[in-house]
Amino acid sequence: MQEKLQTPLIIVNFKTYLEATGDKALKLAKKAEKVSLETFVSIGIAPQFTDIATIAKAVSIPVFAQHIDPIQPGSHTGHVLAEAVKETGATGTLINHSERQLKLSDIEEIIKITRKKNMVSVVCANNPAISAAVAALKPDILAIEPPELIGTGIPVSKAKPEVVTNTIRLVREINPKVVILCGAGISHREDVAVALKLGTQGVLVASGVVKAKDPYTVLREFAEATKT
Amino acid sequence: MQEKLQTPLIIVNFKTYLEATGDKALKLAKKAEKVSLETFVSIGIAPQFTDIATIAKAVSIPVFAQHIDPIQPGSHTGHVLAEAVKETGATGTLINHSERQLKLSDIEEIIKITRKKNMVSVVCANNPAISAAVAALKPDILAIEPPELIGTGIPVSKAKPEVVTNTIRLVREINPKVVILCGAGISHREDVAVALKLGTQGVLVASGVVKAKDPYTVLREFAEATKT
Amino acid sequence: MQEKLQTPLIIVNFKTYLEATGDKALKLAKKAEKVSLETFVSIGIAPQFTDIATIAKAVSIPVFAQHIDPIQPGSHTGHVLAEAVKETGATGTLINHSERQLKLSDIEEIIKITRKKNMVSVVCANNPAISAAVAALKPDILAIEPPELIGTGIPVSKAKPEVVTNTIRLVREINPKVVILCGAGISHREDVAVALKLGTQGVLVASGVVKAKDPYTVLREFAEATKT
Amino acid sequence: MQEKLQTPLIIVNFKTYLEATGDKALKLAKKAEKVSLETFVSIGIAPQFTDIATIAKAVSIPVFAQHIDPIQPGSHTGHVLAEAVKETGATGTLINHSERQLKLSDIEEIIKITRKKNMVSVVCANNPAISAAVAALKPDILAIEPPELIGTGIPVSKAKPEVVTNTIRLVREINPKVVILCGAGISHREDVAVALKLGTQGVLVASGVVKAKDPYTVLREFAEATKT
Repeated sequence: MQEKLQTPLIIVNFKTYLEATGDKALKLAKKAEKVSLETFVSIGIAPQFTDIATIAKAVSIPVFAQHIDPIQPGSHTGHVLAEAVKETGATGTLINHSERQLKLSDIEEIIKITRKKNMVSVVCANNPAISAAVAALKPDILAIEPPELIGTGIPVSKAKPEVVTNTIRLVREINPKVVILCGAGISHREDVAVALKLGTQGVLVASGVVKAKDPYTVLREFAEATKT
Repeated sequence: MQEKLQTPLIIVNFKTYLEATGDKALKLAKKAEKVSLETFVSIGIAPQFTDIATIAKAVSIPVFAQHIDPIQPGSHTGHVLAEAVKETGATGTLINHSERQLKLSDIEEIIKITRKKNMVSVVCANNPAISAAVAALKPDILAIEPPELIGTGIPVSKAKPEVVTNTIRLVREINPKVVILCGAGISHREDVAVALKLGTQGVLVASGVVKAKDPYTVLREFAEATKT
Repeated sequence: MQEKLQTPLIIVNFKTYLEATGDKALKLAKKAEKVSLETFVSIGIAPQFTDIATIAKAVSIPVFAQHIDPIQPGSHTGHVLAEAVKETGATGTLINHSERQLKLSDIEEIIKITRKKNMVSVVCANNPAISAAVAALKPDILAIEPPELIGTGIPVSKAKPEVVTNTIRLVREINPKVVILCGAGISHREDVAVALKLGTQGVLVASGVVKAKDPYTVLREFAEATKT
Repeated sequence: MQEKLQTPLIIVNFKTYLEATGDKALKLAKKAEKVSLETFVSIGIAPQFTDIATIAKAVSIPVFAQHIDPIQPGSHTGHVLAEAVKETGATGTLINHSERQLKLSDIEEIIKITRKKNMVSVVCANNPAISAAVAALKPDILAIEPPELIGTGIPVSKAKPEVVTNTIRLVREINPKVVILCGAGISHREDVAVALKLGTQGVLVASGVVKAKDPYTVLREFAEATKT
């Protein structure tokens, strides 16, 4: 992992929300940077492909692509090239988000590409067994999304905490080093605090911040919560 | 089609060539702009997603994405949103290139999205029957790639010209309006001239320009050839 | 189209319903055959891959695969080969059902394969524009599913009939020969009668028959309705 | 694993070879059964979907599908249902062959489905890291295909044996129980003997048997080789 990425780590996934597209994406990125500078908490952001270059030039915090393809430079119209993402100044990339799931062999190939290019890989996994399989591929960061928590609106602090701890245990048996983020149900500061308390090293958030009335304040609370 | 797009039209597909990534993409874009301004020939460029915003701000010629996804704004991590492409200042998008083939229903959905967003759709088709099917979907531009010509190194001027004329005839029976580009085997100025003579309204080129030792000169020759 | 296929035509899609799997698929196939023999109405059935061989041997009515892949014999583990389907005695195949949508280029390739193998192609299309595009590919049969009718439970007889007639008109402009089936909202005998009255040459049905308490009686009613 | 599956185990993948389609598939299956009965070596076969039912009824050796889909019974036109494969009498299924690669989440889901249905899962993996990831998903059988050996024509006995032993070591750290087959470069009896000597518990073969002039004799030699 690159030096500027420290744990606890918060990554904000901009998805393809209009609230995080174009000029609005840049403004949101600057708010995230502001919180990071004020709180000294490591905050990464994952804007859309078309916004990466502008944002990576404008902010000092780590920027991630939301996906890259398992390709080498060449004849691959419409694909996302690691070299192109890297040249924007981006730090790394998310892959295998539940909204952009990949073939196992592609995940493995992309992790190899990021390693070779000195880019940080953040691989999403949406249940404990899949988390274990991803851990075996040795990515830099693993974002786990316990299925009991996705889309339920139930924060991890109220859900059975053993789902998270069991996932962590399974992953650690296979890979003691990978940084583990918790990626579902994070919408209140308590959720961040509990996620860390259960043994993860940060959170992957999206609508909780992007669609908040006041993203700065929410993200600031999340950042403060990592210190408790 | 937007006013600034006129025929004959040359579109340069940057693919994921290193020679057309990042700073090099910007330089290539400026060369294309220079040729267009000097020759008064309409030239469009299709850089990678990560380069679109920078290039669209820097040049006055039409910029295209190489692909967009059939999605609406929302939870679509790792996808390419029409609104995001449009906000960069891009004119439209290529879709269904032979290196990024799409489901029929997605092609139809993307054409609908571009129409609604006032973006220009350039749909690729790699044989006559597929060209006819695409024509039925009423895109703005259809880029045909006669299979006999792809990757053979044989320019259209030497290949049997009836392949092109037959494709045009099939397309015209279904759609009299769509702008037809010829998209394979274009590497010499004669190829451009013959493509137009056979009834197409322009060309879709890639390596012939991008990987040329002197892209400016090659593209300038292509542009001049549209006038013969 | 093969001689044994006449219009009006009813095709029953078995999908992967348990009520139409294994022994139950064979029993359902025999009921369909019984109705066809009693009513002299052409009825085809589309069972699962694993049931095709047994059923094609046991019944005299046309049997269809639910999908085939755009492949030639060779190294294609886990794919469905046209030759293998044909050798079971099957008449043809459905493709591009909304539950198994295909790339445009694959649809074109599969239609070519079926034509070469003298198999009947039944291509599904889920809106008018897509129907027109499919018509341009010249399949034997086109099964249209007007989007207003899918999954709404509203039979075609109550929905706006111009949706069906407009789709037929669009298709006929491009392809005057293709047999057109109506494939959504068919659950009562009146729906069959109205579908034919609006200009289609038959229906593609699934749960309306497969999940009926008495599939024989429902299908018998559908068959009789084609005569009104 | 089911009782009738013992190690050493040979699985013959019929792919979509014409030599292993329809009647020819049945004949090949009977030859495999003959070898198994004569040598008391466990031999499984993986015919095409359309041939599974006929073959599973005709032979006493284990029959595998070449793929199943991660679906439940219902509206899944053109997919392969576990229940349908199981009802033919098949023992289990291959999945994730390099010719039919799957999303990680689908592999995990299919393994869960096979476990619930008491079917044997044989998951293919085409390099050491992917083998480790698959091992974490706890399939019954893992078929490893060291990339150095695929399609090179170089048998495992002549290639660097540490590729196989390293893969086995990586897999065993994560999963001590999974049966490991060696799935590339197996075309001579020595290859089988060496594969077992290196620590695998059997082989996954295809063209070496299917396309042999005398499949019975080749398979008989492979079976004998497991005893040395």
